[in-house]
Amino acid sequence: MTQDLHGKLTVVDGLIVANWSRSLFQAMHDGGLTAANCTACVWEDFPTAMKAVADWKSWIRENSDLLLQVYTTEDIRRAKAEGKVGIILGWQNTSGFGDYLPLVQVYKELGLGIVQLTYNTANSVGCGCYESRDGGLTDFGRELIDELNRVGILVDLSHVGADTARDAIRYSKQPVAFSHCLPAAMKPHPRNKTDEDLRLIAEHGGFVGVTAFPPFLKKGNDSSVDDVVDAVSHVLNLVGEAQVGIGTDFTQDHGRDFFDYITQDKGHARQLTEFGDIVMPDGFRRIEDFPNLTAAMERKGWPERLIAKVMGENWAGHLHTVWGA
Amino acid sequence: MTQDLHGKLTVVDGLIVANWSRSLFQAMHDGGLTAANCTACVWEDFPTAMKAVADWKSWIRENSDLLLQVYTTEDIRRAKAEGKVGIILGWQNTSGFGDYLPLVQVYKELGLGIVQLTYNTANSVGCGCYESRDGGLTDFGRELIDELNRVGILVDLSHVGADTARDAIRYSKQPVAFSHCLPAAMKPHPRNKTDEDLRLIAEHGGFVGVTAFPPFLKKGNDSSVDDVVDAVSHVLNLVGEAQVGIGTDFTQDHGRDFFDYITQDKGHARQLTEFGDIVMPDGFRRIEDFPNLTAAMERKGWPERLIAKVMGENWAGHLHTVWGA
Repeated sequence: MTQDLHGKLTVVDGLIVANWSRSLFQAMHDGGLTAANCTACVWEDFPTAMKAVADWKSWIRENSDLLLQVYTTEDIRRAKAEGKVGIILGWQNTSGFGDYLPLVQVYKELGLGIVQLTYNTANSVGCGCYESRDGGLTDFGRELIDELNRVGILVDLSHVGADTARDAIRYSKQPVAFSHCLPAAMKPHPRNKTDEDLRLIAEHGGFVGVTAFPPFLKKGNDSSVDDVVDAVSHVLNLVGEAQVGIGTDFTQDHGRDFFDYITQDKGHARQLTEFGDIVMPDGFRRIEDFPNLTAAMERKGWPERLIAKVMGENWAGHLHTVWGA
Repeated sequence: MTQDLHGKLTVVDGLIVANWSRSLFQAMHDGGLTAANCTACVWEDFPTAMKAVADWKSWIRENSDLLLQVYTTEDIRRAKAEGKVGIILGWQNTSGFGDYLPLVQVYKELGLGIVQLTYNTANSVGCGCYESRDGGLTDFGRELIDELNRVGILVDLSHVGADTARDAIRYSKQPVAFSHCLPAAMKPHPRNKTDEDLRLIAEHGGFVGVTAFPPFLKKGNDSSVDDVVDAVSHVLNLVGEAQVGIGTDFTQDHGRDFFDYITQDKGHARQLTEFGDIVMPDGFRRIEDFPNLTAAMERKGWPERLIAKVMGENWAGHLHTVWGA
């Protein structure tokens, strides 16, 4: 029954930052994912980030039995129809633009769909959530948002400092997103968002993707898939049914070197935070377990219509608004 | 009468390497160009070449009353219908790939349509026409051609060494081109092509664009537009009506610094050749004079059908073959 519902749904994951491989793509397929925002840049500079886009195109071609690239939401519908996983290229930082604004158009044409303004620390655009002070969105940050708005790339604020995020929410002419976050009301944490900020983003048409990353969940490594659904409920109560989705933050198949890389500024400088061992929520340990998330929502008694929206339709609608197609 | 014929034609220039600006785009428009292979890379490395592509997209957007970008030959037809100039992004070197093969797909998606394998000297792909010896196409050169063939980018051999060019003509699974050259039978010069090589490329389905660059014409700076048409006639006699076009090599609005840059290896090393002052052919001094080329063909008594083919239809057909669209 659950499998039947999950299999019918358009399932969109608002953030995966896994160790990409054939078996990972198979896991996404087995989990019934229709599309996912796949991180292709964290700290990388422009040439390295561009080569990563090139690598993604090779992977998509070499695994075309499982994958297709998403340029518009029509490709998400096509992925569903063809039983493939749609790859939305996304960045968790703006370093890949090399502060060269004309490259925004170039990356858009190559399929970059979602870009987070800063990753944990300060850059030329603004401050990150682990930065000791937050000076807000910079003048260049406003120029960059103008260009992201113009070409149709979703502005993501998940790892962005609170002041910079509020500036961006108010400044952007296109609605923005916290693609993967949790409510600070359930666990205070630099990465979690206050009810006030969740309401603010929603009031400006923005989107909230709820993550399953244990360090940000109240019960940490002892969390279960039901705790994730509880967090979704909290957000639903704040922002309504249409602006909530999932952004798991699965780091599947990554080892210690990856966590060292993402928790040091620029990948190699001072340590910003320490996650320790990470155990994904019980029932939602791996991407293959995605049907259990749908099942947990059914157990809560949510109507199919609401489950369909949270599991993917809301994401598809929000991306259509920002991308314009 | 002539103006009428020229205005009716689809006019394709197989190579322009001008100093790009609004007034240059206006000149292309005034000359009745439907599309042109516009050089966006000569010696530049990968990051610089990518930024140049980004710059081109800005220019096309900012001058969208005059220009549109050509991704397929359908865009050439659209340019004609809308009275705009279609910009085909092209490279005279492979340096912009940074020897990273997955970037070929990336540049193709961005509209790179024509790539010359080497520019005057040796690189990782093969040798150039001013190199003191020619070791032929390299193993990596074959891999690169495979990828250019796969994605549908035309291989250009104009400035390539004769041995490397012959290897490429025979190796490429898609027909190749000398986009801008002249017959060595009319003037011996390292840049000019022997009748044997012109026949060889044609036998393999390849294309010959005839240039108007005076240093390669028999009369040099004393040439006229009729001398250009005579060179076209020479090539027509060798390769037939379907595989000949124009590739002017207009360097309009460039100064001394540009010629220093292109005539030194890598843009800054040893001097390869010295053109001195360049005076474009009488009657074909500037891009705006393009209608005079059509008129000169009419004066020779060529039928409209042949003029239409040489002025652009042949180029459009050849690009359709290689691009697949």
